[in-house]
Amino acid sequence: MLSLKYINIKSFNENIAYLNKNCLEYAIEDISALSQVEIQTETSKIYAFLQIVEDESLVASNEIGLNREAFTDLGESEGTPVSISLAAPAPSRAALKRKIAGNILSPQDYKFIIKDIINRRYSNIDIASFIVAGGTFISANEVLSLTDALVNSSKIDWKYDNIVVDHHCLGGIPGNKTDIIIAAIVGAYGLMIPKTVAKSTTSCASVADTMGILTNVHLTQERFIELAETNRAVIADYEPLDIAEAVKSISNVERHLGLTQQEFLLTSILAIKLSAGITHLLIDIPVGEKSRVKTTYEAIRLRKLAEFAGDRLGMDIEVVITDGQEPIGNGIGAVLEARDVVQVLKNKPNAPQDLLEKSLFLAGRILEFDPKLRGGQGYSTAEEILKSGRAFEKLNDMIKAQGKKEQPVLGEFTREVLAPESGEITAIDNMQINRIGIWAGVRQNTGAGIDLFKKTGDVVKAGEPLYKIYTATPEDLELAESVVENSTAYTIKNNL
Amino acid sequence: MLSLKYINIKSFNENIAYLNKNCLEYAIEDISALSQVEIQTETSKIYAFLQIVEDESLVASNEIGLNREAFTDLGESEGTPVSISLAAPAPSRAALKRKIAGNILSPQDYKFIIKDIINRRYSNIDIASFIVAGGTFISANEVLSLTDALVNSSKIDWKYDNIVVDHHCLGGIPGNKTDIIIAAIVGAYGLMIPKTVAKSTTSCASVADTMGILTNVHLTQERFIELAETNRAVIADYEPLDIAEAVKSISNVERHLGLTQQEFLLTSILAIKLSAGITHLLIDIPVGEKSRVKTTYEAIRLRKLAEFAGDRLGMDIEVVITDGQEPIGNGIGAVLEARDVVQVLKNKPNAPQDLLEKSLFLAGRILEFDPKLRGGQGYSTAEEILKSGRAFEKLNDMIKAQGKKEQPVLGEFTREVLAPESGEITAIDNMQINRIGIWAGVRQNTGAGIDLFKKTGDVVKAGEPLYKIYTATPEDLELAESVVENSTAYTIKNNL
Repeated sequence: MLSLKYINIKSFNENIAYLNKNCLEYAIEDISALSQVEIQTETSKIYAFLQIVEDESLVASNEIGLNREAFTDLGESEGTPVSISLAAPAPSRAALKRKIAGNILSPQDYKFIIKDIINRRYSNIDIASFIVAGGTFISANEVLSLTDALVNSSKIDWKYDNIVVDHHCLGGIPGNKTDIIIAAIVGAYGLMIPKTVAKSTTSCASVADTMGILTNVHLTQERFIELAETNRAVIADYEPLDIAEAVKSISNVERHLGLTQQEFLLTSILAIKLSAGITHLLIDIPVGEKSRVKTTYEAIRLRKLAEFAGDRLGMDIEVVITDGQEPIGNGIGAVLEARDVVQVLKNKPNAPQDLLEKSLFLAGRILEFDPKLRGGQGYSTAEEILKSGRAFEKLNDMIKAQGKKEQPVLGEFTREVLAPESGEITAIDNMQINRIGIWAGVRQNTGAGIDLFKKTGDVVKAGEPLYKIYTATPEDLELAESVVENSTAYTIKNNL
Repeated sequence: MLSLKYINIKSFNENIAYLNKNCLEYAIEDISALSQVEIQTETSKIYAFLQIVEDESLVASNEIGLNREAFTDLGESEGTPVSISLAAPAPSRAALKRKIAGNILSPQDYKFIIKDIINRRYSNIDIASFIVAGGTFISANEVLSLTDALVNSSKIDWKYDNIVVDHHCLGGIPGNKTDIIIAAIVGAYGLMIPKTVAKSTTSCASVADTMGILTNVHLTQERFIELAETNRAVIADYEPLDIAEAVKSISNVERHLGLTQQEFLLTSILAIKLSAGITHLLIDIPVGEKSRVKTTYEAIRLRKLAEFAGDRLGMDIEVVITDGQEPIGNGIGAVLEARDVVQVLKNKPNAPQDLLEKSLFLAGRILEFDPKLRGGQGYSTAEEILKSGRAFEKLNDMIKAQGKKEQPVLGEFTREVLAPESGEITAIDNMQINRIGIWAGVRQNTGAGIDLFKKTGDVVKAGEPLYKIYTATPEDLELAESVVENSTAYTIKNNL
C-alpha cells in the first residue's frame, strides 16, 4: 500500500498519479508513462494516468501523488493508504478504434465511450482522436446516439413549467451578443429561459465572457435552478453546473484544438440544452463566406439534422438561417459587447441597429413558442417589451440576483485604423476581425477589443477611422497591428 | 522576471510549465490551462504548456516550475531569471486544421508541422489530431512530403559503406523474431546492417524487447555508429539515437492510442531508416485475416506506395509479401522469443522450423542486395552461414559488444491450455494470441508469455496441451485465463 499525497497542480482535466521512480510497489521502468492505473482505497476507486517523479521531497517512494483532478475525484485525505494496479483497457477502446477506422458505431458503443470519458478513462489524446475521427465522418443516427449518451442521467427537471425555452447561435460572428437581450425580453415576457453558455472555441468573446462583465455567471446548480424559477431568466456558465459532464471534457479539447466540426458541435449543444431541461430551442445559423457555416446548403443540412435529432430526443427545435456576412453590433471583445447590449436594452438612439433588429427577430420567434401568443405577434410583443423598458429592468433583476460587478475597464492602449481610400464598404471579413481581436488579447483581457465605426454599405473617405483597437499592453497592440497590416478586414469599392 | 525551478516530473513528452495561481507576472485566471507560453532567458527560448499550482512550497508566486522535458530543453540552472509571454499560435496550426478538414497538404505544410512537433509547439492533443486526420486520408505525395519532413537534417552518414542494409516487418504477427537471426547472418556475411528497432504498438514483444533479453539495446549515437562499423551488425532501440525526433513524438501517441494506420506507420519506418542512413531496405508485409494487413490487395497497395516513396527519396526498397496467418516460432513474449532465436542460431534440432525458414528466406533476399552475389544465391549463402555457426558467432560478438545480460527468468505462474476436442488444427488467431499475451502481462514482464506446442496442420487429441501461459503474478494468470475462456485462439476441425 502507498500513502496518498495531494499534489496541488491543476492539469488539463486529466487525472494524473505521480509515482516515484523508486516506488516500492512497482518496477517503474516496466510501466511506460501514460499507462493508466486503478487507484483504490477501502471505499473509493478512480483511474489515473501515470507520471514519473525522481524527487523524494515531491513524492517519496512509499507515496502516490494525485493532482487536483484525481485527488478531488478520489475524495480521500492525505496519508490514506491506497493500492494501485495497472488498469485493463477502457471498455470502449475497441469502439474508439472502429470509429477511427471509419465505421458507424451503435448507440451502445456511444454509451460506453461517454461513460469512459466521464470516468476519466480517456486521456486527452484519446478524446482528441475521438473528436477528429467523429468529426470526419458521423451519420445522423450516430448524432442521435452520441447526443443521447451525452445527456445521460443528469437532466434538470423543471417542476412548474411545461415550456422552458432557450436559443443558441452556431457562432463565428464577431459581436452578435443577441443572447443577453433575448434573455431579458423573454424573461420579462414571463417564459422561463435558463440560459447555459460556454466558452468560445473560435470567437473573440463568448456570451459567458460578455455577461461576465455585468454579473457573476459562475452559479451552482441549486442557485441556477432557484434563479430561473424566481426570475424567469438566468444566464450561467454551464461548466460549474452538474450537467453534461462529458461535453465539458470534449469541449476543452476542441477549444485547445480550435476545432469546430459542425456535427460534433451540434451534439454538444443539443446535449447541454436537453440536460438543462430545455423543451423549446431556437437555433440560429448565420451563413456567410467568412463565418462558420459558409453556404445555405450546409445550413439546411444542419437544420435538418437538428430537427431530426430534436424530434427523436423530445425537444421542439426551430432553426432560423440568418445573415452572417459581417459582425453584428459595433463592439468586439467582452467590455465593448456589454456596452452594446446595455445600449440596446436602454433604448439609446446610438445603439447598434443590427443588434437590436436581430435580437427582436429572434426573441419574437421564441415568444411564439408560447401557445397563447397568436402566430405573427412575436416580433411586436418583443419590441413592446424592449421599448417599455421592461427588458432592461429584467436585465437589472438578473444582475442584482447573480451579483453586480465593478465598472469594467477598457484597454488603455488604442489605435484607430483608417480607411486607406475613399469608397463604399462592400464587405467585412469576420475571420480577420476575430484574428485581430485575438491578437489584441481579447481572450486574456476583457477590456481588449475592437470598436467598429463603419459597417457594410457605409461610405467612407480616405483617412476616416474604420475601427479602433483597444489592448491592455503595448505589446498586444503591436501584435494586433501586425495582423492589420495583412488586411484591415474591410473591402472598400471606390467606383463612386 | 520569474525564478526558474526544476520540477522533477517526467510527463508524456510534453514541455510543462507550472505557475502559481498568484503568479506575480500574470493574472492566471485569464489564462486557460494548456495555453502555450514562450519561456525566455538571455540565451535560450522554449515553448511549454501551462499548468496551475496552488501550493507555494511547490512553485512560489515569483517562480516558474518546469518539468523534466522542459527543464532539459531550456538547459539553464535553477534560479535563472526567466521571462514568459503567451505564445502566438504555432506556425503550422492552420495547416493542421486543413488536414483535419480533409485537405491535401503541401511539402511546405509538412515541413512546418514537423518543425512545430520537434520544437514542442504541439501538445499530445495536437499530435493525436494530426495522426487521426492524416491516417484517415493521406495521398501518396503527402506520404512523400511527410517522410521527407520527418527525416529532416539528422541523417547518419556512413563513411566507408555504399551498401547499408536493413529489414522491417510490418508487424502484427506474434513471435516472428526473424530480425535478430537476419542481422546475425547478414553481419556474418559482411554487409553492414545497423538495425534500429522500436517499441511495439500492438504486438506482445518488439525486437527491442526480445534483443533486450540478450543484450543492452540502449546505445548512444556514437556507440551505435562505432559498433556498426567494427561489427557490421548492431541492433539498437532508436529512441536514444539522435535521429527522426518527430517520429518519436508521433509514435508515442500512436502507441498510447494503440493505432497502427498503415500510411502513417510507413512514413515513420521510412523516415527512421532514411535517417539511419540505410541505402537498401527489405520490407516484409505478412498478410493474414488476423494480422495487421488483411488482404493481398492491401499489401500490394502498400508495396507500391513504399516503392514510390523509396524511388523518390533515394532508398532501394524491396517488398516481400509473406504468409501472416499464424504466429511464427513457438515463443511469444520476450524471454520465450529470445529462446527461439538462440535455438535457431545454435542449429538445435528442436528449433522452430517456420522461424528458421522465414529468416533464411529474408536474409537471402537482403544478401542479394550485394551486387557481387549472383541472383538466386542469397538463400543458400544465408543457409551456409547459419549452418556453419558463423551467424551464432556474430550474435555473440554483438552481445559481447553491446553488453551481456543476466540469465532471463520465465514467469513462475503457468497454465497449460488443452485441446477441447480431437482433430486437425486449421487456424490460429494472431489477434487472440496477442490479447492473451498482453493480459498475461508481456508488456510489463519480459518473463511472461505463451509457449505454443502446436501449429496449423498439427493433429491433436482432446486433452493434449496446445500451449502454456507464463505470468509473473497469479493475478495476471487469472486475467489471461479469462481471455482464453472466450477463445483458445485455436480452430480444431474434427472430421477425421
